[in-house]
This record gives sequence, structure tokens and C-alpha cells, in this order.
Amino acid sequence: MRILGPAPSCLDRLECSLCTAVRPFGPEPAGLCTCGAPLLARYRLDEVRKALHREDLRGRIASLWRYAEILPGVTPVTLGEGFTPLLPASRLGRELGLHGLLIKDESVNPTGSFKARGMSVAVSVAAAQGVRVAATPSAGNAGSALAAYGARAGLQVQLFLPETTPRPFVLEARRLGARVRLVPGSIADAGRVMRESLGQGGWFDFATLREPFRIEGKKTMGYELAEQCGFELPEVVIYPTGGGTGLIGMWKAFDEMEALGWVGGRRPRMIVVQAEGCAPIVRAFERGADRALPWPNPETAASGLRVPGSLGDFLILKAVRESGGTALAVADREMMEGSARLARHEGIDACPEGGATLAALLHLKQEGKVGADERIVLFNTGTGLKYFDAGPGIEPG
Amino acid sequence: MRILGPAPSCLDRLECSLCTAVRPFGPEPAGLCTCGAPLLARYRLDEVRKALHREDLRGRIASLWRYAEILPGVTPVTLGEGFTPLLPASRLGRELGLHGLLIKDESVNPTGSFKARGMSVAVSVAAAQGVRVAATPSAGNAGSALAAYGARAGLQVQLFLPETTPRPFVLEARRLGARVRLVPGSIADAGRVMRESLGQGGWFDFATLREPFRIEGKKTMGYELAEQCGFELPEVVIYPTGGGTGLIGMWKAFDEMEALGWVGGRRPRMIVVQAEGCAPIVRAFERGADRALPWPNPETAASGLRVPGSLGDFLILKAVRESGGTALAVADREMMEGSARLARHEGIDACPEGGATLAALLHLKQEGKVGADERIVLFNTGTGLKYFDAGPGIEPG
Repeated sequence: MRILGPAPSCLDRLECSLCTAVRPFGPEPAGLCTCGAPLLARYRLDEVRKALHREDLRGRIASLWRYAEILPGVTPVTLGEGFTPLLPASRLGRELGLHGLLIKDESVNPTGSFKARGMSVAVSVAAAQGVRVAATPSAGNAGSALAAYGARAGLQVQLFLPETTPRPFVLEARRLGARVRLVPGSIADAGRVMRESLGQGGWFDFATLREPFRIEGKKTMGYELAEQCGFELPEVVIYPTGGGTGLIGMWKAFDEMEALGWVGGRRPRMIVVQAEGCAPIVRAFERGADRALPWPNPETAASGLRVPGSLGDFLILKAVRESGGTALAVADREMMEGSARLARHEGIDACPEGGATLAALLHLKQEGKVGADERIVLFNTGTGLKYFDAGPGIEPG
Repeated sequence: MRILGPAPSCLDRLECSLCTAVRPFGPEPAGLCTCGAPLLARYRLDEVRKALHREDLRGRIASLWRYAEILPGVTPVTLGEGFTPLLPASRLGRELGLHGLLIKDESVNPTGSFKARGMSVAVSVAAAQGVRVAATPSAGNAGSALAAYGARAGLQVQLFLPETTPRPFVLEARRLGARVRLVPGSIADAGRVMRESLGQGGWFDFATLREPFRIEGKKTMGYELAEQCGFELPEVVIYPTGGGTGLIGMWKAFDEMEALGWVGGRRPRMIVVQAEGCAPIVRAFERGADRALPWPNPETAASGLRVPGSLGDFLILKAVRESGGTALAVADREMMEGSARLARHEGIDACPEGGATLAALLHLKQEGKVGADERIVLFNTGTGLKYFDAGPGIEPG
């Protein structure tokens, strides 16, 4: 039976993403650096380079835990997350005259979104460290994923969601045994209420980038892109960006893989997509700023993009610029049209965030920023099932 | 890039499951045998036996198309279906004193259910044969799957669903571009209305077992069980049975694998689970009958089990008896409790049909029909997301 035991991890230490202070990875759960910035996991890559050749991955378990050496060495709390399909979008590609169009479909993850990746790894570490109560603010999908992995690990889970979160997310998290509190305002307000109402100690904060291991789960999207493209990275990656963990994670994966000799120096152009009603990274990118100011009164139907600020803003902006990419905002109407088109032309019932990547692609194409034969990867970050329960949505005639 | 081309299929012919009449697999779409029974695909297994060793599967694509030799040789219309995780249910297993408890989680398939398997294969064949209009009656998940694969293949899709089908299924299918007609009564009534209203010709009938290739997709669940258990089949398989294609398909897979020398003669005991309000197979099993009479006024919240009769009834009953298995019905309340328990204890947001397998297991345990160390596989056939939108459902306090 293929049940994966503790992994031969080469995790070495935690390192601050801003001040580069180092701390050991040990039995105590780690939060932010004392300077307030996110900690990142660092590995003995020279050791991995010797022990693991990229061809050795072939035949490993079809989940993100196939990359055990560059993940923390704990018993996985797993539901089979990751190693999602990279699907050719041939029909849509022909219509658009883009012959290398691909969709990384994250909707087939447990709980229907890419959030499963981060939570599988973060909960695995936290459970091994003896955490009993898990808490996070969430726009919806992260909450459901924490609820699922928390349930599987026997943790108590406390979620704080904006009261505008579509109802299917709330019901899902409750079915999975989480306590869900609805909070007026955005995910930032939900985070504040969480920290006030749970008080000091006795619980662990799984909020985006406030612990170092959700990003380790998310970075596997970068490893998979490489592996699924025969270790020739695609030319363009279009990514819907709320907290941005996935984009930061993929950039980290590209760094690691280059150090391992698995990929060369050519990287994809990383394209950040946000909503017109909440575009802090786009604004900062356009202004040439290194950090993004919080977006006042964020508004968009794509709950995963209703994120007024990210602790990793500087990391996102750096990756986009280093990659020669860009950042752009799309209207909610365009996202919905994008979702509808992905559904009707490619059979993928995409969430609005996934639809946003197609909307962005149409802009990039019009501006001549993508080539007809480039491999362009759209990230569909989650299923459409949780969004279109009650509203008129995108129902066809 | 790992894009799979046409497969080195060893498909040989189609054979009637009842009268054993043979017809070639050719350019014309195939429906039922002239005697009215389902046709089954037969392969040149001696050729497969020589060409493909079970170890060769290692490293193949993580979808059901990894079993290309024993699938039809057409270009796959694929969304990455199959090769779903077989998850240890350790917490639940400890509670129940069952130490080999496993869950085959089909909810991570495209469109969130096991129906993706059958439709991927059947649509691939039909598209290659030039079918333009696809139609099926459905309890929900088969319709959404046909909508998705039909969209991907550029087919027009016509669905006929019972008007009691939960709304999320209907909205999903419509987002995927299908025309959905709601019909009073059960799936049997929906099938009748379909055949009346679409008339003769110009469309192809994808209803359960009315064409030979959905079962080919479903049988891969059996191949995966074997591969994921190191080719030592588990002792017990508990399967929620509506039309029964999956159970018939797994039994066919076991036959094929035995002929290939991949597994020995020991088979799992196959356990059919149905709803108390619709249990035609259970009734026939208890009466010692070879065929099942249609169930009048079927009633259950598990729409996938609200199937009053199956064209494959005799094949289901034969497999269950040959395996030394049994058939039992559970109450809707028990299913819902089962779903809730799978969600809260294992992190799997199971559909009611998935919950029914756990409910059945509790009965089997009480009756001493399962051993503490046997490997018992519960099939969660789909996600809970499409069920619990509006009703009080199983919401915790």
C-alpha cells in the first residue's frame, strides 16, 4: 500500500524574507520574524542536488508530497492534494490564435481549490508541533481547506470570514467541523477580529504568510509546472493574486530548481491579476513602488481577490519585476465572462478568480504582450461550485 | 510537455453482456445489443499481457488514461480524471476498531464526482466517431460530467434531470453550456422524456449502460485499487449503487487483471449500498433473484441512488454473489450522519452517497461481517458541495 511515511526532508532553517535573520526549524511553531516580515523555509539544496535527480520524481506519489526533499520532514496530513493537471486549452487557443495556451486546473484539489496545498503542509507541521487549535481569517477557500486538514489532524478549527463570503463556503467549513464567525468588512477586518477575540496563546495563526509553511505547499505549483513541461518552464504565467502566496511560492520554487540544476535561468513572465475594485499590487506596480498601500473599501465578487493588503507585497512586486512580467486589474464583469468561457469552451467550471486570468490574457493579447506560440499558463485556482449558488451569476439563456 | 496522444489500445470487439453476440468496434457509435442488453468492450488481453507489465504503469500520466492499452484507442478528451487518492481513514478506523479502513475519494475528479471517468472515455469515443449532439438523463453528476466533456469536445449537450435534483447540479451543468430540462419523476422518467422529445437520430444516448464506454472509464477504479494496493486487492469494497456501472466496471477490471496475471484469484467482497427509499438491487439480492424489478416511487435525498432500475441489474447481482458480498439499504438519516462523520473525522466533505457507505459499514460491523484487520474501501463517489446549498442538511451546532 502506498502510504507515505515521514519524508527525507532537507529542510535546514527558517530565514526572514526581509531582514534575513535566521532561526532554526524546531519543535516550537514559528510565526513572523521579530521584524514583522514572513519567514521562509531554506533547504540544504547541495544535499538535495546530490541525492535527488529530477528523473527520480517519475513514479512518485501523485500528490505534492512527491517533492518530499524540499518540504518539511513531518508525517503528511494529506488528502491527495496537488499534482493537478496542466490541460491544453486547444479550442480556446484556436479562437484566440494562441497555440500554447494551458490551464493549470487547481479546482480538482481537495476542497476544490489551491488552498489545499498550503494547508496540507502547514497543518502537517503544526500537528507535529503539538498545535491543538487552528485559526485563520479567510476569504473562503483557505478556511475550508484549514477545516478539512484540521479535521483530519484532529485539531479544533476557528475561522473568521467576511460576512460577504458566499454561503457555500460557510456551509462547507461548518460541515467539516470548523467554528465559523462572520465579520463585517474585508479579510483584513476578519484577521483583526480573530486576534482580538481569540486573545493571547493557546491557538495558532494560519493566516497568509504569518507562518512559513503554507508557502511551502503553494510553491509545489512551480515544481509541477516544471515537471509537467519537461523542465522547460513556460513563457508566461497568469496568476490571480490576493495574498500572493502562490506567486511568491512559485518564484521560490524556480530559485530552488535553478540551484538544483533542474531548470535553467529562463523564467516565465509572471502576470499578477487583480480586481478593479481591489488592486493594491497593480497600483504599486504602476507607481514603481516596492510596497503596496492597503486598498480602502475593497469590492469584488471574487472573494479570493478581496484582499486589501498582503504581508508579502514586496516579494510579489520583486518577482513580477524580475520576471519581466506585469500587473493588471480586470472588471468583475470580465471575470465572469472569463469563467463562462472557460466552462463552455474548455469544460472547466472556473471560479471568478480563474476567469480573471482569461480576462487578463485578452488585455495582454490586445496589447501585443503575448506571442502566438508562447506557452501561457492560466491558473484556475478553484471550482466555480461555491460561487454561483443563488445569484443570477452567468447562467446561459 | 506531457500531452497524451492516441493510445496503444488493444480493444478488439464489443460483446453483449447477456446473449454474448459480438459486433466490431468501428466508426459507427454503438448502443445496446439487439437483444436489449448492454454491450461490453473486449480486449486482446494476451497481447496486453505480453506488451505491458504492471510495473510499467509506474510513472505514467496521473489520470485514468495511464491504462491506455485496456481503453479504446481514441484521442482522449481529458480533464485529468481518475487516479484519485486512496486515503487511510486512520481516525475513524481507530474509533471503529477497523484498522484497514480506506476511502477512495472520487470527489477530486473534474466536476467533483466519479462520473467524470465514464464520460471522459465515452465522449472521447463518441467525438472520434463524429457524434455532434450528446444527451443523457441524469441524477445530477453524470449530467455535469457530460456537460464538461461535451463542452471540451465541442458537442452540444442536452440533459434531462428529475425536477427534484438539487439546484447546484442544474446551475453547474448550465454554466458548462448544457441545455437542461427538468422532468417530474425519477431518472427513469427523465430518460423516457428524453427519448420522446429528442425523437429519432441526430443525437447520441449517453445514458447508463446504453453505450459501452462509460463502463470502460468506470472500470479504472478497479485498476487503481489494485495498483494503489500493490496488486493485492482489498478484502472489502463498499459501493453506493444507483445504475451500478462502477461496480460492474470494477468486477470487469478484476477479470481482466486476473487474465493479465496482475492479480490472483482472490477478490474483494463487493457490498452494494442503496437507500431504504429506493433499493431494487437489495430486494432482488435478498429474494435470490437474478434480475431486479423496478422500484415504485423511489425516494431518497441521495439523488445518485434515486435510480429505480438498472439495465445492468443482472451483472451487479452476479458480481455481488460471486464475490461473497452482500447488498443492504440504509436510511437517509444514516447517510447524512455518515457524511457528517467523514467530514468531521477525516476531512472529506462527502456526498450522501459517500456517507451511505459508512452507514453500511456500521451495520456490517455490528453483524460481524467485517474483520478488524481487513482492508475495507469506502467509495466516496462525489463532493458534498452540490447537496447542501439550501436545506438544513447536516449543519453542526
